[in-house]
Amino acid sequence: MPSQRLAAVASSPVRDLLALINRPEIISFAGGLPAPELFDVPAWRAAFDTALSGPAARRHLQYAPTEGDARLRELVAARMTGRALPTGADQLLITTGSQQALALVAAALLDPGAVVAVEQPTYLAALQCFSMAGARLVPITPDDPDSVADVFARERPELLYLVPTFANPTGRTLDAGRRAALVALAERHGVWIVEDDPYGELRYRGAHLTPMAAGSDRVIHLGSLSKIGAPGLRLGWLRTPAALRAALIVAKQAADLHTSTIDQAAAAAYLATADLDAHLARLRAAYRERRDTMLGMLPRIMPAGTRWTDPDGGMFVWVRLPGPADTAAILPRALDHDVAFVPGAPFYATDPDPATLRLSFSSSTPAEITAGMRRLGAAVTAG
Amino acid sequence: MPSQRLAAVASSPVRDLLALINRPEIISFAGGLPAPELFDVPAWRAAFDTALSGPAARRHLQYAPTEGDARLRELVAARMTGRALPTGADQLLITTGSQQALALVAAALLDPGAVVAVEQPTYLAALQCFSMAGARLVPITPDDPDSVADVFARERPELLYLVPTFANPTGRTLDAGRRAALVALAERHGVWIVEDDPYGELRYRGAHLTPMAAGSDRVIHLGSLSKIGAPGLRLGWLRTPAALRAALIVAKQAADLHTSTIDQAAAAAYLATADLDAHLARLRAAYRERRDTMLGMLPRIMPAGTRWTDPDGGMFVWVRLPGPADTAAILPRALDHDVAFVPGAPFYATDPDPATLRLSFSSSTPAEITAGMRRLGAAVTAG
Repeated sequence: MPSQRLAAVASSPVRDLLALINRPEIISFAGGLPAPELFDVPAWRAAFDTALSGPAARRHLQYAPTEGDARLRELVAARMTGRALPTGADQLLITTGSQQALALVAAALLDPGAVVAVEQPTYLAALQCFSMAGARLVPITPDDPDSVADVFARERPELLYLVPTFANPTGRTLDAGRRAALVALAERHGVWIVEDDPYGELRYRGAHLTPMAAGSDRVIHLGSLSKIGAPGLRLGWLRTPAALRAALIVAKQAADLHTSTIDQAAAAAYLATADLDAHLARLRAAYRERRDTMLGMLPRIMPAGTRWTDPDGGMFVWVRLPGPADTAAILPRALDHDVAFVPGAPFYATDPDPATLRLSFSSSTPAEITAGMRRLGAAVTAG
Repeated sequence: MPSQRLAAVASSPVRDLLALINRPEIISFAGGLPAPELFDVPAWRAAFDTALSGPAARRHLQYAPTEGDARLRELVAARMTGRALPTGADQLLITTGSQQALALVAAALLDPGAVVAVEQPTYLAALQCFSMAGARLVPITPDDPDSVADVFARERPELLYLVPTFANPTGRTLDAGRRAALVALAERHGVWIVEDDPYGELRYRGAHLTPMAAGSDRVIHLGSLSKIGAPGLRLGWLRTPAALRAALIVAKQAADLHTSTIDQAAAAAYLATADLDAHLARLRAAYRERRDTMLGMLPRIMPAGTRWTDPDGGMFVWVRLPGPADTAAILPRALDHDVAFVPGAPFYATDPDPATLRLSFSSSTPAEITAGMRRLGAAVTAG
C-alpha cells in the first residue's frame, strides 16, 4: 500500500531505538544529541521574547518568503565568510533543519534510478532520504581518488554525499588534499557534491579546514544550528550553486512553504546578540573532555584487537570489534546492562560490517561516560 | 539539470506575485493571508515564554519524537473530537504546516505515474506537490457523483484531494450528502481521500458539517494552526488511517526528522491557556464583515454578467468575468491601479478558465476592501 519508493526504506533504527530506551537508568551513547545542560536557555528565551516584541512581532507570526528570513541569512553568510567560505545572503536558503536540505536536494536533483555516491559508512538518514527518492546508492572510498574516478566514470552519479568534517558515524575528517582531489573529480565528471557540515564548529584539536564549497560551484554546502545552538528549532541552511537555486526554492515551496518565521526571527536575534563564540568555547571544552574520557576508557573495556577512531571534533567514535562479532546481537545485552549504542550495519549503503558500532560522547557527562563504558565492556565481553 | 519531476513544476505564481507586490500603496486581495492585526500577540509571547521556562525548557530545545509533542497531539485531538471528528492523540502526526502533510502523503502513497483526482479549480500548492511526486492529475466534479464513479473506475486514482469546507480558491462547501456520496465511492473503489481542512473553524453562516473523516478509514484529514492561530509557526496535523501511520512517519523522518520542538511546545501552551474560542469569535466577526463588504462591492464594480461565489466561511471569493476575458492580462493593469488579485488559471489541473480570478478578503480592512474593489473595477473595465 505505501509507495514503492517508501516501502524500500525502513524506519530509522536509531530513532526507533531511541524511542525504546528512555528508561532513566540507561546511559545512552546511542543518539547524536547535543548536551541539553549546555543549551544557552536564557539567551534563547530572550531571543524569542525579542522576536515577539514590538511592531515586528506580527510579521514574525505571519507567512514569510520561501528563501528564509533576510537578516538570518545575512548573519549566517557573515559567519560562513569568517570561516573561509565567502558567502552572500542571496546564496543561502533557510531549511527546516539540515535533514530538509537533504530532502530538497533529493527532490531537485534525483529522478528515480539516479545514482548517488556515498562514503561508507555514512549518515543513516541521508541514505534513507536518497533511497526514498528512488536513487541507487554506490559506495566510494574518499581516501582513494583513483577508485572514486573509476566509480564516477562507471556509475555516472548525479551527486556525491559527504560529511567531510568529523563525520557521522565515524568522526573522521577528510584532509585538505583529499578535499581538493574530490572537488576536482566532481568538476571533471559533472557530479554535484553535497558537503554536509553540521559539526564543523565542534573542533577539539587542529586547525579549521577550508570547506569544499570554497572555490567550486559544484558543491552544495549544508549547515545547521542544531549542534551550535539548539536542534529543537529545526533550523539549517543550504548554500546553493546559482544553477540550482530556482529548483531548490520550488522544492522548498512544495515541502513546507517556508521554515517557521518565529524560529528564524529568534535565531537571528540569537546570532546577533548572544556571544556564540564564547558559547562554542564552552561546548568545545565540555565535549573535548567527554571525547577524551571515552577514548581513555576504550582500551580498558574492549577486547584485544578492537579498533576505534580518534576524532578531532564532532560527537562520535566508531568502533570495530575483533573477529566476526555482531554488534546487533550485543545490543540487547548492553540494554540489560543499562547502556545503549547504535550497531554499525545500518550506516552502510552496501556490504555492512556487523562488527562495528557507533558511540556518541556528547550527551553524557564524564562520570556517566566512565560508568557507561564499564557497563559496555561487561556487555561486550559477556557474550 | 533539475530532476524531471521538478522541471515539470513551475514556482508558485501566487508566491512569485506576492514577492513582487510589497509596495505599501497596493491593496492586495492576492494572498491567502490571515489578518496580522488580529494575531493574539500577547498570548503567543506568553506561550513561547512558558515553553522556555522551568525544567522543560531544555527538553523544548532538544530533538524530539517524529510523531510530535504528546501534549499538543492530545489538545488537538480533543478539539477535533469536539468538532464531530472523534480522534485519539495516537492517530495524529504533527507536521510542519499543512503543506508538509501534503508532501508526506505524496511521498507515502504516490509512485511516479500514479493518478490523483482533484476538484477543479483547487489549491495550487497541492497540485504542485502531487505533480512533483510524478503523479498525473485528473479532475473530478464533486457535485456529480456519477461522473466521479466513472473517473474512479476508468483512471483508478490512488487518492482524491479535496478542500470540502470553504475551499481554496472558490470558497465553496460540499454539503453532507455529497460528502457521504464521495466517501462511499472512495471506499468502494479503494481510493484514499485527503480532506484538507485549514478553514473549517472560520464559518460565518450556517452549521458545522461533520468532517468526511468521521466514520471512514479511507480519509486522511489535515488540519492547521495557520488560520486559527498563526501561520508563522508552520504547525499542522495529519489524522492518519491506521494503515498509513507507519509509512507517513518514515516519510516525516526523511523530510525534517520532526517539527520544531519549541513551536510545538508553544502551540500546546497556547491551546491549553489562551481562550481560542473567544479569539475565533473575534476572527469570525471581523472576517464576516470583510466578506460582506467584498460581496457588497462586487455588483457595483464588475461588468454585467460577472458571476461569483458566496462563501459561508474561509477567506476567498471566486469570480468569473463574462465572455472571453483573460484575468492574467488584467493583472498588470490592476497593479497599475494599486490593487492585486490572483488570476484563476493556475488553480486548474487541466483546461483552465482564463476568465476566473481569486479574491481574498481576510487581510484587508473593510475600508481597504471598499477602496481596493473600486480600483479593481476600474482596472477590469479599463480594458
